[in-house]
Amino acid sequence: MTALEKFKGRIKRGFHVCIGLDSEISKIPSHLLSRKDPVLEFNKAIIDSTCDYASAYKINFAFYERDGSYGAELLAKTIEYIPKDILIIGDAKRGDIGNTSQLYAKSLFEYYNCDASTLNPYMGFDSISPFIDYEDKLNFVLALTSNTSAADFEKLKLYSGEFLFQNVISRVKDWNTKKNLGIVFGATKCDELKENIRLFGDLPVLLPGIGAQGGSLEDVVNTFKAEGKDLFIINISRGLIYLDDSISFAAKAKNELVKYNEMIIFLMS
Amino acid sequence: MTALEKFKGRIKRGFHVCIGLDSEISKIPSHLLSRKDPVLEFNKAIIDSTCDYASAYKINFAFYERDGSYGAELLAKTIEYIPKDILIIGDAKRGDIGNTSQLYAKSLFEYYNCDASTLNPYMGFDSISPFIDYEDKLNFVLALTSNTSAADFEKLKLYSGEFLFQNVISRVKDWNTKKNLGIVFGATKCDELKENIRLFGDLPVLLPGIGAQGGSLEDVVNTFKAEGKDLFIINISRGLIYLDDSISFAAKAKNELVKYNEMIIFLMS
Repeated sequence: MTALEKFKGRIKRGFHVCIGLDSEISKIPSHLLSRKDPVLEFNKAIIDSTCDYASAYKINFAFYERDGSYGAELLAKTIEYIPKDILIIGDAKRGDIGNTSQLYAKSLFEYYNCDASTLNPYMGFDSISPFIDYEDKLNFVLALTSNTSAADFEKLKLYSGEFLFQNVISRVKDWNTKKNLGIVFGATKCDELKENIRLFGDLPVLLPGIGAQGGSLEDVVNTFKAEGKDLFIINISRGLIYLDDSISFAAKAKNELVKYNEMIIFLMS
Repeated sequence: MTALEKFKGRIKRGFHVCIGLDSEISKIPSHLLSRKDPVLEFNKAIIDSTCDYASAYKINFAFYERDGSYGAELLAKTIEYIPKDILIIGDAKRGDIGNTSQLYAKSLFEYYNCDASTLNPYMGFDSISPFIDYEDKLNFVLALTSNTSAADFEKLKLYSGEFLFQNVISRVKDWNTKKNLGIVFGATKCDELKENIRLFGDLPVLLPGIGAQGGSLEDVVNTFKAEGKDLFIINISRGLIYLDDSISFAAKAKNELVKYNEMIIFLMS
């Protein structure tokens, strides 16, 4: 099953919510702390209860790298635990000169067996090309991110009149000859999504910024629906995995996810 | 000793060459392959023979991350082995939203004990700010990189008339209130260095692109000398560590490094 097939398979079932496994030992329910690998147990419980309803899992590498080799093991074991029909996004925002990006791609796709990556476009095509060479994978290139400082460079106006992030989107479309590229587009301000959605073409879109970062899920879904597009997934991390501190935390995450799904299916119908 | 003190301490001795430990098992001398940790043994030998003459070590995380938890151990053990008076640059080119960048900074500066980082500016100030909070460290922000595709975005002309990478340099200068920022500026084309060096102000500069990537060390040194600047280090990886496939590989690296130092001291005098 290619990454794009996994992605589309879940979307066909009306699932557009991607669960961000931004798992931190300081934030997980305290009853897990006595277990051997508390963060892994936390991830497993979240995966068990949500894998029939999630569109994808996005694993933010920073939350694991902080613990060096132990974190790398947690990362590998978490990824291994996720059922094979769900897209696993290795959210590492890599990008380097060609021979180095090749090793980052090896790490993400061969060592960790992720289905998808997030990539930083600053260094240009040859920093992204080694990821494109993995034809069955999917790569979400940062276009407009959900943080306040996205204004610093991403929203700089170019001499051509467009914004930098708009130029990135155009180039990603040009580079998408193997149909394995997508974009990251922050959902904090829905106006920006409305103004730019026609630029996306048929690129799959990963949208962070809903929930803890302030964006409205309803507005995002309505915007895609209005354009007749459905190749989008909305990432929610803190707003799902840390809803509850009791032994019911995973069930609560599932209930909330199912509510999101029902709302999205209603809005998209 | 702060990172900047380590950096300046070596430069005072005339040392401007940074050794890139882009160590790959497929490229190291074959006699090491029977050892328990061949890449670590390779790194130790290179460090032993060059640490009295190098300006810094730059460790490219991709070369270690490809091996997951084992790579993380190699990385930690390599860093631990480097004498404490030499700058260790964790070349990971990170950059993410604030709470995530904070964890990347923790990983680089607290778990791995690097003195310095390389950072990708695309996401703007709040992606860099958690690194700035470590006042005693040093952070080299990507301005102009040494790869061909640097032209794709870094050299886009902005509405203001300047190139994107020039805007990045200006902003880095604005953000440098704690005197712990520098820039990465590719040395493949010396004309670009000559045209932009006056923008750098007193920012420390890390220059990749010499040697395997085609830039001329002599031109780079002369350009800094002509401006009366000395806060620069030139990274050389493949052109130093893979000079020789025999048991003398480390001695060869040292001899070549000493030759570079002599040439640079001559040019700078």
